[in-house]
Amino acid sequence: MSIGVGIIGLGTVGSGTVEILEQRIPYFASQLGLDIEIRGLCAKSEEETAPFAARGHRTTTNADELIADPSIQILVELVGGYEMPRRWISAALRAGKHVVTANKALIAKHGAELFPIAAEKGVCLQFEAAVGGGIPVIRAMQESLQGCEVREIRGIVNGTCNYILTRMFQQDEDFETVLADAQKLGYAEANPTFDVDAIDSAHKLAILASLASGKFVDFGKILVEGIRGIGREDVRMAREMGCTVKLLGIYRRCDDGRIDARVHPCLLPKDHLLSRVDGVLNAVHLEATNLGPTLMTGAGAGKLPTASAVVGDIVSIARRIASGRVLPLPMGFYNADNAADLLPAGEMRNKYYLRLSTRDRAGVLAAVAQCFKAHDISVATLIQKPAKDDAASIIFTTHRCLESDVQAAIAELDALPESLAPAKMIRFG
Amino acid sequence: MSIGVGIIGLGTVGSGTVEILEQRIPYFASQLGLDIEIRGLCAKSEEETAPFAARGHRTTTNADELIADPSIQILVELVGGYEMPRRWISAALRAGKHVVTANKALIAKHGAELFPIAAEKGVCLQFEAAVGGGIPVIRAMQESLQGCEVREIRGIVNGTCNYILTRMFQQDEDFETVLADAQKLGYAEANPTFDVDAIDSAHKLAILASLASGKFVDFGKILVEGIRGIGREDVRMAREMGCTVKLLGIYRRCDDGRIDARVHPCLLPKDHLLSRVDGVLNAVHLEATNLGPTLMTGAGAGKLPTASAVVGDIVSIARRIASGRVLPLPMGFYNADNAADLLPAGEMRNKYYLRLSTRDRAGVLAAVAQCFKAHDISVATLIQKPAKDDAASIIFTTHRCLESDVQAAIAELDALPESLAPAKMIRFG
Repeated sequence: MSIGVGIIGLGTVGSGTVEILEQRIPYFASQLGLDIEIRGLCAKSEEETAPFAARGHRTTTNADELIADPSIQILVELVGGYEMPRRWISAALRAGKHVVTANKALIAKHGAELFPIAAEKGVCLQFEAAVGGGIPVIRAMQESLQGCEVREIRGIVNGTCNYILTRMFQQDEDFETVLADAQKLGYAEANPTFDVDAIDSAHKLAILASLASGKFVDFGKILVEGIRGIGREDVRMAREMGCTVKLLGIYRRCDDGRIDARVHPCLLPKDHLLSRVDGVLNAVHLEATNLGPTLMTGAGAGKLPTASAVVGDIVSIARRIASGRVLPLPMGFYNADNAADLLPAGEMRNKYYLRLSTRDRAGVLAAVAQCFKAHDISVATLIQKPAKDDAASIIFTTHRCLESDVQAAIAELDALPESLAPAKMIRFG
Repeated sequence: MSIGVGIIGLGTVGSGTVEILEQRIPYFASQLGLDIEIRGLCAKSEEETAPFAARGHRTTTNADELIADPSIQILVELVGGYEMPRRWISAALRAGKHVVTANKALIAKHGAELFPIAAEKGVCLQFEAAVGGGIPVIRAMQESLQGCEVREIRGIVNGTCNYILTRMFQQDEDFETVLADAQKLGYAEANPTFDVDAIDSAHKLAILASLASGKFVDFGKILVEGIRGIGREDVRMAREMGCTVKLLGIYRRCDDGRIDARVHPCLLPKDHLLSRVDGVLNAVHLEATNLGPTLMTGAGAGKLPTASAVVGDIVSIARRIASGRVLPLPMGFYNADNAADLLPAGEMRNKYYLRLSTRDRAGVLAAVAQCFKAHDISVATLIQKPAKDDAASIIFTTHRCLESDVQAAIAELDALPESLAPAKMIRFG
């Protein structure tokens, strides 16, 4: 029995998916016994579809055609964005089609609507490429690690931010310079908000946290902090303290069963394996019962790495179709009625790095110390740099303390008459 | 429909598997809709089975009882060794049972006999725990990476050797001291041959190489070199050269289609991700078309990590059983008629490290240089250490050259009248 694939979206990942399928279809037939066929390709203009039509593919600019085609059992959505993909995927699932997508924004935002439809119709909605590009972390969590409970995740899941932070760290450059360069090199978008403000990372962390907890983790409800605020001076201090700076998505199951999920820059000791994940690489570090710590790292983006994950999902569904009866992976838990009980940001506990810029006056340190004391913040280390032009830089690291206490202290410190700039805060990871 | 599991072998991994199943069975039922039941446990003595019988399990000392039991659909073999497991697994497969094993020796030695039986009977023979313990590398290769061709593998797949080499490197100790300690700590067996002579690594590499190539790679035909020959002085030199020493299993697909597969100690630059995999950790570094480089690291051994991989396999088979029809992963290629065309050891090309111990005489260097020249070996670096007690140490590194040339040169150098000890050779990885 041959299995028909339709693909909506022929941009970078879409054209990569077609390319890999064309390469690998003979292998799937001869080695896996799977007869997979591309039965329709859709993009929004004929200009985009023309090169594929020229290679003999059936093309269209109307996605509904593919959704209505009964010879297509697996619909692949690679457009990105929220609204159109939501409609297409919803319609395809309702039509009894299996769906593969690389769209993390969609899964994070509308997964809670889509997974129940898939569950009801008994079809698959797979999304390996949505997190970590080609790194097979989704399947590992859905299948291989069923003998474990994943208690903690730390992920570098945005290559753009990791590239920027790596360069800031290795070459002592500042954020704006590296961002501009990353844009020139194609590692960052002209509008870099999604990446540098960590929205993309939050989508991905929410997906990982949902899989780990078996509950729906709403990315809109987690603490999200991007990397714009990381100064060259902070990166230098990190280096002096034997740390790197990484943007991490963090998931942790608290002892009381609540879920601590957030995305923010972290100071990470240099000997942590994640510290060595540099440039555009992604990595996911899992801490699971029974298994212990596990790290997976690889290309988190890019045409062919991402497309290879899409193709892995297609093959996995094709195998189930070929077995005669498809039992989808149970994703029914991913719905709004089963929302995770999230730890409020203020209740998180961390060690903190704080950098204050103040006037070089007698009594400043006493005021700061008094403020910390009032908020029950215990200082671990303190460095005061020699003052320049009447501006002093005081760097504290704290013992483990409560986020709300630190936030309250920062508000007070920023209001001190001697304060020259808002305090910089980075959590230890 | 409930799915029955029988387990032969109640040692470390076997008892861990029972423990995890007992923990997770309620979760499998409620979250995955899989009703998995332990229906029989077997060990060789009643002393071993008694604690399990006391917990309410049906136990036996006769494995054939489990094989004959039609209520057991999945048979788990966790005894280790070659002959008995071969007979049990063969019988279980012929009886239409699915089999899960952690036995790398068995898969490497008798897989070519067992996989065809599984293929003929349409049942699964899964072995995630056989390589890399809890690291889900087998499933990644069998499923997630179907959109890629794995061209190169470098694996640290033996925790005992990695522990020994890590301590030698970090604490400047010699092999015998660390081995004795590892034995005391339970990281090495009383008879350490399987580990330190790299037989265990060779089993695992042969399995990975077979999966990557889609051909049967016979572990008995690959170059295997253990870590006994690594001297404290070599580790020191490695450090001076900015390298670590790791025992690697290496797979590479040559441009002419032949397979370069071997296991030996390697000098690895410190900035390579594998260099940071220390202690008993395992890691597998894959280089795949489309995907690029990917690293997976985690616990390569130990009771619960290994058992968690066994349980992952049980769940994966149970899911297929629950779907109504099982389509096993196609492992039919793994048979002696489909043997890989292996690159002979002499035709391998590497960069080499060579350490000569010679008498401190005029003319020695000239003789050595002449020998290298005669064998077409081009020297990259040369360090001669100050002589002690008339013994000089000369350390060469070479450019890329042919293994057979290097072996011939070593034979000649060892035969020089000034030679005080056999030359030490380590390949760069």
